Amino acid sequence: MKKSTISASVVGATGYSGQELLRLLYTHENVEIKYISSHSYVGKKYSDIYRNSPLDMVCSEQDIERFAKDSDVVFIALPHGIASKQVTKSVLENTKIIDLGADFRLKDKNVYEQWYDVEHHGANLLDEAVYGLPELNREKIKNAKLLANPGCYATCSILSLTPLVKKGLAKKIIIDAKSGVSGAGRSLATDTLYCECNETIKAYKIGTHRHTPEIEQVLNFEKLTFTPHLTPMNRGILATCYVEPVSDISQEELNNLYANFYKDEYFVRIITDGTSAETRWVKGSNFCDISVFKDERTGGIIVTGAIDNLVKGAAGQAIQNLNIMFDLKEQTGLEQPPIFP
Amino acid sequence: MKKSTISASVVGATGYSGQELLRLLYTHENVEIKYISSHSYVGKKYSDIYRNSPLDMVCSEQDIERFAKDSDVVFIALPHGIASKQVTKSVLENTKIIDLGADFRLKDKNVYEQWYDVEHHGANLLDEAVYGLPELNREKIKNAKLLANPGCYATCSILSLTPLVKKGLAKKIIIDAKSGVSGAGRSLATDTLYCECNETIKAYKIGTHRHTPEIEQVLNFEKLTFTPHLTPMNRGILATCYVEPVSDISQEELNNLYANFYKDEYFVRIITDGTSAETRWVKGSNFCDISVFKDERTGGIIVTGAIDNLVKGAAGQAIQNLNIMFDLKEQTGLEQPPIFP
Amino acid sequence: MKKSTISASVVGATGYSGQELLRLLYTHENVEIKYISSHSYVGKKYSDIYRNSPLDMVCSEQDIERFAKDSDVVFIALPHGIASKQVTKSVLENTKIIDLGADFRLKDKNVYEQWYDVEHHGANLLDEAVYGLPELNREKIKNAKLLANPGCYATCSILSLTPLVKKGLAKKIIIDAKSGVSGAGRSLATDTLYCECNETIKAYKIGTHRHTPEIEQVLNFEKLTFTPHLTPMNRGILATCYVEPVSDISQEELNNLYANFYKDEYFVRIITDGTSAETRWVKGSNFCDISVFKDERTGGIIVTGAIDNLVKGAAGQAIQNLNIMFDLKEQTGLEQPPIFP
Amino acid sequence: MKKSTISASVVGATGYSGQELLRLLYTHENVEIKYISSHSYVGKKYSDIYRNSPLDMVCSEQDIERFAKDSDVVFIALPHGIASKQVTKSVLENTKIIDLGADFRLKDKNVYEQWYDVEHHGANLLDEAVYGLPELNREKIKNAKLLANPGCYATCSILSLTPLVKKGLAKKIIIDAKSGVSGAGRSLATDTLYCECNETIKAYKIGTHRHTPEIEQVLNFEKLTFTPHLTPMNRGILATCYVEPVSDISQEELNNLYANFYKDEYFVRIITDGTSAETRWVKGSNFCDISVFKDERTGGIIVTGAIDNLVKGAAGQAIQNLNIMFDLKEQTGLEQPPIFP
Repeated sequence: MKKSTISASVVGATGYSGQELLRLLYTHENVEIKYISSHSYVGKKYSDIYRNSPLDMVCSEQDIERFAKDSDVVFIALPHGIASKQVTKSVLENTKIIDLGADFRLKDKNVYEQWYDVEHHGANLLDEAVYGLPELNREKIKNAKLLANPGCYATCSILSLTPLVKKGLAKKIIIDAKSGVSGAGRSLATDTLYCECNETIKAYKIGTHRHTPEIEQVLNFEKLTFTPHLTPMNRGILATCYVEPVSDISQEELNNLYANFYKDEYFVRIITDGTSAETRWVKGSNFCDISVFKDERTGGIIVTGAIDNLVKGAAGQAIQNLNIMFDLKEQTGLEQPPIFP
Repeated sequence: MKKSTISASVVGATGYSGQELLRLLYTHENVEIKYISSHSYVGKKYSDIYRNSPLDMVCSEQDIERFAKDSDVVFIALPHGIASKQVTKSVLENTKIIDLGADFRLKDKNVYEQWYDVEHHGANLLDEAVYGLPELNREKIKNAKLLANPGCYATCSILSLTPLVKKGLAKKIIIDAKSGVSGAGRSLATDTLYCECNETIKAYKIGTHRHTPEIEQVLNFEKLTFTPHLTPMNRGILATCYVEPVSDISQEELNNLYANFYKDEYFVRIITDGTSAETRWVKGSNFCDISVFKDERTGGIIVTGAIDNLVKGAAGQAIQNLNIMFDLKEQTGLEQPPIFP
Repeated sequence: MKKSTISASVVGATGYSGQELLRLLYTHENVEIKYISSHSYVGKKYSDIYRNSPLDMVCSEQDIERFAKDSDVVFIALPHGIASKQVTKSVLENTKIIDLGADFRLKDKNVYEQWYDVEHHGANLLDEAVYGLPELNREKIKNAKLLANPGCYATCSILSLTPLVKKGLAKKIIIDAKSGVSGAGRSLATDTLYCECNETIKAYKIGTHRHTPEIEQVLNFEKLTFTPHLTPMNRGILATCYVEPVSDISQEELNNLYANFYKDEYFVRIITDGTSAETRWVKGSNFCDISVFKDERTGGIIVTGAIDNLVKGAAGQAIQNLNIMFDLKEQTGLEQPPIFP
Repeated sequence: MKKSTISASVVGATGYSGQELLRLLYTHENVEIKYISSHSYVGKKYSDIYRNSPLDMVCSEQDIERFAKDSDVVFIALPHGIASKQVTKSVLENTKIIDLGADFRLKDKNVYEQWYDVEHHGANLLDEAVYGLPELNREKIKNAKLLANPGCYATCSILSLTPLVKKGLAKKIIIDAKSGVSGAGRSLATDTLYCECNETIKAYKIGTHRHTPEIEQVLNFEKLTFTPHLTPMNRGILATCYVEPVSDISQEELNNLYANFYKDEYFVRIITDGTSAETRWVKGSNFCDISVFKDERTGGIIVTGAIDNLVKGAAGQAIQNLNIMFDLKEQTGLEQPPIFP
């Protein structure tokens, strides 16, 4: 479906992902924002909540049914466990859904309930839901009605590892990922106060982070290790991935493997000068930078991948999916180069 | 002169201002980049120097004469003292110059030489040079051949104070300004190493900063006090301006004064909810946020103004000037909302 | 009273000031910690709340009466409005109180109630309370029973300005102060989340901050201007003070004035090399660095003062006061040089 | 040798490690500083170079021979390749050497020359040199004349892994380490400018970092993987270590293993509440915090270790070694708890 103007609504517009989504949608030439809703700021003008935003619209109550009737697409940026209740067959008859949350990413209801520790209320829609990682799933995304936008850590990890895994080269996988604090959202918590995050780094949810089964599902790889870290910066994810290869492969072959795998992908940039991916070079953009190393001494492969967690890890990827779903040029609204410093 | 495609060159493309300029020009629909030059990176591909950039162009030697012949406009982003030598009458016959440096901002050669401590080689062009603060000088900018783009501190201070000064209300002025570290440029210096700037704040060049005479000249106000501070953040300037008024004026009158003064200015946003301007709300954008307070207890007026030093304080304003000089819509290429967080 | 071992209790031990106090008391050779209390962490081991701390003591309920009976001194680090209720004549018969809060700083109950917007319940003790700025008030502190430890901004501002004010040189005073985020405490608030403070600076409580009357009272100076700013760093206050002098005074005379005024003060360091005070040079220590400038052009005087808000601005000064009150060497427990970087 | 006053000199006093060393030595009750030298600041007063420091001593030329004659101990904090020339048998006849640099850490001259890419001039001393990690090597340190103080990454990694390795449990080891920027030193480099490090994270020297052979040598483990990362903070190292175990071991057994292994070590703190080690809890101190996890799902073991790179990773450990070498209480001068926030 190609339309010159797509009417879009955003549920959960006042979290960091929702805010980034509205920032990007604001200059998207084909999108008109219809409704925005918020749990905490009903009745408030958006530009008074986020003073950076030129958007003068007022936040309304969450009403997915109504939004669905009046919008070509509804973005949902809510904590997990809510979308699975509110997105129904009848909603999907009226609109397309792009869910930035976790509820429709995992195909197996049991796996979801085990990792997320809440009941899944929309299991009947899991088959229909399309996992929205365009670089791997573009064809299915085109016709998706219910799109599950990938997690930030998952996006970065999957893009960094897929060429090796698809080639059958990965025997063991360890992902050591570092995220900026915006990934923790805007909810109040002692742990995300300035003085608690600044000038320190830590791992968290070791062995239990919910993006683990998502990465395993998409890579179709069992029992990898995933360790997230909280890093003192606003934005960015760096995934340092350690792969024990099934068989030997040279640095040149690795570079070629990655270059070829992503040769048609505008948003994936392969680094071949021997340096690591760095989050500063992708900040504010939808790019994913990837660099792959052969450690000649140990035989291991080390892949570093970097994204902006709020863009390619959330809002930007949602727009990339929108563009695909509505038959627009995939970069529409995402052309701005990364901002540095 | 309105052209659908303007060919632009950038001299000094690899400093932070030059980099920001290229970032913004990259998506400017009417600009085609012709040449870029660099002192330190001749022969290197731009996207290898700044890996955020999608620009594949190679840096050439600085050759303003040649650039002038082949370009509709040449941006200059060099340390002071160089442009005054290289920009000549003959250069100006071939192109328009937008100088992001300080050489053509001050009208009085002696004042320049006293504050900058170098000889001025282009005094014959000082009359012709137009000070490029669009909100105050738009008409002259339209026909400028040699445009002097304002300093970052100067932009923020002048916009914050002009309504009061023009109204004849300012008796004494003190400007306490705080800048992010990118304002110090990319040159190597112990003082701008990470560990020397992080987790600390200081004043510097007290009573001697070179933007002082620029602010005084444009405000036409003698002997104001200007104190810059180095703040641990990449981008942003906050100017806290203390004005002793000639006569009493109410908070409401102040708000109206500012609202009216800037009522047609897209890039100036007046805050009236009683809170300060904050640099986070303008980051990555060409906006200048201003908030004005009446201190009922002391009778003083306190104005806070915030800009992104690299955008409205440098590259963004240069593009705003370009748009005016080439009869384009003033926001062209500057529509992206501020990026937060 | 000189004692080899002083038993001390801390009420409000789990805020940032309380934590810093316990950090410093831990190595104070004359202090034994008796009780610590907390509103939120009753029953928890201190080293589990603040894992940096080697203190294994358990937080008890707040019970100033009991603490007073069993301790030589009780430190109170609570939000304003509580100490004025809990500190009574009978408490003071049993112990000395060092209150890090605001309740006993202002001599005039009405001024307190106007600025703090709560009722003061201990007005009968205001005369007895001693303002604990040792550099100005050492003699009175020696015999204090109820000590009001100064505010962080107040300490930095008063020390920076007193030589000029005492000399009768100050005609007008403007204080532009910048604080690290720990000054805002550990309570949950959107404004102190990492992503809201990082990479930005703002003024706040313009014209209304509660340290204003405290500074005016101690300097005995009416209607000065005080503007605090939130700066992206954990610790530190820089006060940039603008003084319009009554009569002319040279740079040399200024340097001498300050050097002489503080010549016997270990914790005040006067900078005379022409650079600003910087918070990085006092971090973790009880020092206050001060630098004074004559602006020859305008005739104005600019004083920069820097402290660590949690040390000289709170816990360190409280210990300095303890040392004076118990006839110990004033630097005891405060000898550690500032930590950099 | 127990002395009430030890005369100590510091060669390379003006780098970050040297500065931290002098900060800590300043309050060491048994140490008197004799000489300090600097490459860049000869003739300058130390407190003018590092204004935090109360040390009024003047930097002299580097003259290890002379320092050796007049000092009980000489600390060397120089870039690699210099100490191996200057430390000679005759120097060691006159004094004890504590070398914070890399020259005497590796036992095999060839390994050194291969990884450091410079010639080693003091190979005749390699046998005599004692590797100064007190928790593993205390007995030898007692009688050391030439002490090689461990690298920062090495200290953190080795302490985190030794209990597993010594027990024979480690089959494969991957160390993903994150360091604050002070680890890069105070030399001028574009990569350590504020704007290049702030708000970003990257890996560097993947597969080639020089602490790799040091870790392997001390653990006596071949071909482990070590990847360092540059993190936007001043201080701190977090090592996230992935160990594939030879055989199954429970979480409880792991906790006991670590608790027992370090049960007599004051500076090693084992965390058993299931959370990661964090650099904020060790800042400014000589502690190493370690937490060990069993990933039940994969069978892997994940150890997080945190130190302050300038203290336990450099200057603090050097003092701990001094204390052992001079038969002092091991915590002397290192009692100050970590500073937070």
